[in-house]
Amino acid sequence: MLSLVLQRKFVIMEGPQTYEPLTPEGLASRLGGLEVLRKCLGGVADQWQVEEIGDGNLNLVFLVRGTKGAAIVKQALPYIRLVGDSWPLPLNRAFFEYHALIRQAERDPGSVPEVLYFDENQAMIVMEFLDDHAILRSILIAGAHVNNLGTRLGQFIARTAFRGSDLALPIVERKSDTKLFLDNHALCNITESLVFTDPYHDAELNHHNPAVDGVVTDLRQNIKLKAEAQALLTKFVAHSETMLHGDLHTGSVMCTEDSIRVIDPEFATYGPMGFDLGMMLANLIMAYISQPAHRNSKDLASYQDWILDVIKDLVSAFNEEFSVLWLSERRGVLFPHSLFEDQQHDSSLPLQAKQREIWEDALGFCGIEMHRRILTLAHNADFESIEDATLRGELEAQNLKVGARLIIERQSIEDVDAFLAAIQITKVTG
Amino acid sequence: MLSLVLQRKFVIMEGPQTYEPLTPEGLASRLGGLEVLRKCLGGVADQWQVEEIGDGNLNLVFLVRGTKGAAIVKQALPYIRLVGDSWPLPLNRAFFEYHALIRQAERDPGSVPEVLYFDENQAMIVMEFLDDHAILRSILIAGAHVNNLGTRLGQFIARTAFRGSDLALPIVERKSDTKLFLDNHALCNITESLVFTDPYHDAELNHHNPAVDGVVTDLRQNIKLKAEAQALLTKFVAHSETMLHGDLHTGSVMCTEDSIRVIDPEFATYGPMGFDLGMMLANLIMAYISQPAHRNSKDLASYQDWILDVIKDLVSAFNEEFSVLWLSERRGVLFPHSLFEDQQHDSSLPLQAKQREIWEDALGFCGIEMHRRILTLAHNADFESIEDATLRGELEAQNLKVGARLIIERQSIEDVDAFLAAIQITKVTG
Repeated sequence: MLSLVLQRKFVIMEGPQTYEPLTPEGLASRLGGLEVLRKCLGGVADQWQVEEIGDGNLNLVFLVRGTKGAAIVKQALPYIRLVGDSWPLPLNRAFFEYHALIRQAERDPGSVPEVLYFDENQAMIVMEFLDDHAILRSILIAGAHVNNLGTRLGQFIARTAFRGSDLALPIVERKSDTKLFLDNHALCNITESLVFTDPYHDAELNHHNPAVDGVVTDLRQNIKLKAEAQALLTKFVAHSETMLHGDLHTGSVMCTEDSIRVIDPEFATYGPMGFDLGMMLANLIMAYISQPAHRNSKDLASYQDWILDVIKDLVSAFNEEFSVLWLSERRGVLFPHSLFEDQQHDSSLPLQAKQREIWEDALGFCGIEMHRRILTLAHNADFESIEDATLRGELEAQNLKVGARLIIERQSIEDVDAFLAAIQITKVTG
Repeated sequence: MLSLVLQRKFVIMEGPQTYEPLTPEGLASRLGGLEVLRKCLGGVADQWQVEEIGDGNLNLVFLVRGTKGAAIVKQALPYIRLVGDSWPLPLNRAFFEYHALIRQAERDPGSVPEVLYFDENQAMIVMEFLDDHAILRSILIAGAHVNNLGTRLGQFIARTAFRGSDLALPIVERKSDTKLFLDNHALCNITESLVFTDPYHDAELNHHNPAVDGVVTDLRQNIKLKAEAQALLTKFVAHSETMLHGDLHTGSVMCTEDSIRVIDPEFATYGPMGFDLGMMLANLIMAYISQPAHRNSKDLASYQDWILDVIKDLVSAFNEEFSVLWLSERRGVLFPHSLFEDQQHDSSLPLQAKQREIWEDALGFCGIEMHRRILTLAHNADFESIEDATLRGELEAQNLKVGARLIIERQSIEDVDAFLAAIQITKVTG
């Protein structure tokens, strides 16, 4: 309830307004006065247990436990935590994360952690603690299952894509939202360079396994591939179609066996509808391709089959949910009823064309994500945690080749079956 | 020189800050104190001759003459002049016109009237008077010639398209500019409805010649056509690629035999590169198609041939100039040298793909403009001034059919020759 009230205004902390990074020791004295936190945690602030848990790359993250409950306190640092203060990054990413979270909560209720409190000056979000949840990437490396994973992710992507676009929103609201997120250019710039461009030249922060040198040379010699990657970048920077999560990989999803929550939308920006879909597909495909290194031969096939099922479910849920919304919530300026339903004309032809466009774009973004995770700054544990260097090289090479194929052949990969076939052609059996 | 200084700041009038429409009688007393105007006009303000000349649809426009020179004073009204105060329209369109003019002047020097003074509160721009210039649409109806018309228009469109995009600008500057123009939603909304959607249903403000009823029914029955029109609208609203003029028809160009200036960019917005190109092509094609009603049979063929030459010159100058800029001024985040030239790879493959995309989009926008000028609120004099109702109906029908063909077949119309062939197939000879 409280979060619904908070969604519509900024909450300004009563304490000092100058930004100051939190410490485990100082947290209770700085946040103990917050009514919302006292209610959620219970007990006296002095007795709260504070643990710094980090979130990997960018921010300070604390788990705070009281007698009654727990909460997460996430605070941006003025630089990238992974790299250090040599790479400054604006604090306002917390502002964009907050604004993305409340929109996602509205567009797909229950999909993201509830925001309890936001302090813009301190670049700090206090949010629901997701007890017992683990990062999806770790779950996939460990070989565990999550019920309805594909369906739930597909629905999330469809609902946020559709409901943040001119298919659904009044256009003045969509434009005003686009304006708001256009200021998130520092984080978008990371995506623009690191994801779309750095894989295809010898960029300063790049590093890759020498075992894939040959494949990397081939990729960078491929002018058609680089041209397509830049056409996809053009879409990413200019096609302000809907509010994207912007960084929707398996490290941005937390799950139990039955619960799925999407976190960390600080890269939120207006962009093309296929972007989040493509990023998530890429990370599931990378989980699939890297499995031979993580499973024994007895479990490999069945777990890989499960990942393929997750992918099929995801694409099918995305298409199904997008179609439902197209028919039931199409109230924006695009494809208005006045041109179709009101003239007794079926709107399924333009729906199919739109889904086709999203699918093609998604395949392209998928291929690019598969490249950048092997070649640029931020690799992923699916491959990085493989100790056998030879096997890792083989799997990474396979991943790079599949990525190139998706980018170049995306217009002729008709559906999810053709997509999965394209992935399995150069299969390594481990 | 002065305009260069003015380009970087707002000039706030010293007089009353409350908006008040100008009158011919009151103009000298309200603007006589302006140093820039006194210098340009000469003499004493009391002796200035003020003539209200209108500009057709939207604004107040005055021609002010002194002993030495003349200037144009253009002031927005809080409603659409053509319709009256029943259709309110925000005054800030003068703000967007001013910002578009100074950017166009920078990106293609000499292409637009020089801005002498801008007053945001009064929604007023004082600009260079274009002596002896006539509106291009009237020139084309009258059958006169303008030297280098196609070349100059093609260069203008290429330069503004390229230099306002992420191919050239630092991306933070492009994003900040996109934000600025996103507030121009009132005028963009006119384009969104009136241009892209109203032609294809029985919208309230529509009117058309009953002689084309049959063709109109066919168009509105064509689901594929309407789907394509909405896909083009999706590009228009969301693909924020470059700063467009936004209303680049032959009524927005003023010429003498040797001078060409583009005026009236109050519809400026960030949009797809093919939009201005398509709008201008449409208006030249409409001039071409309507010629049988304006020329005697002796002059018809040669004047129509001249218009076709203008179109060929325009497309060829656009492509040529775009290519030159691609090679010489590509300094933005898109298609960076690091991926092509720095790796000794030719960038002409992605250039051709980009030009192909712009061309296809332009053909689609061209077809839509050809439809809305016959079917919605704002018709054009090329057809409206034809007294012979039967001939007008035939030419309008031809125009509608060609438009539909361009929208639907745009992906297979390879070049300007195929484009001109598509137009001539249903030729009416007058």
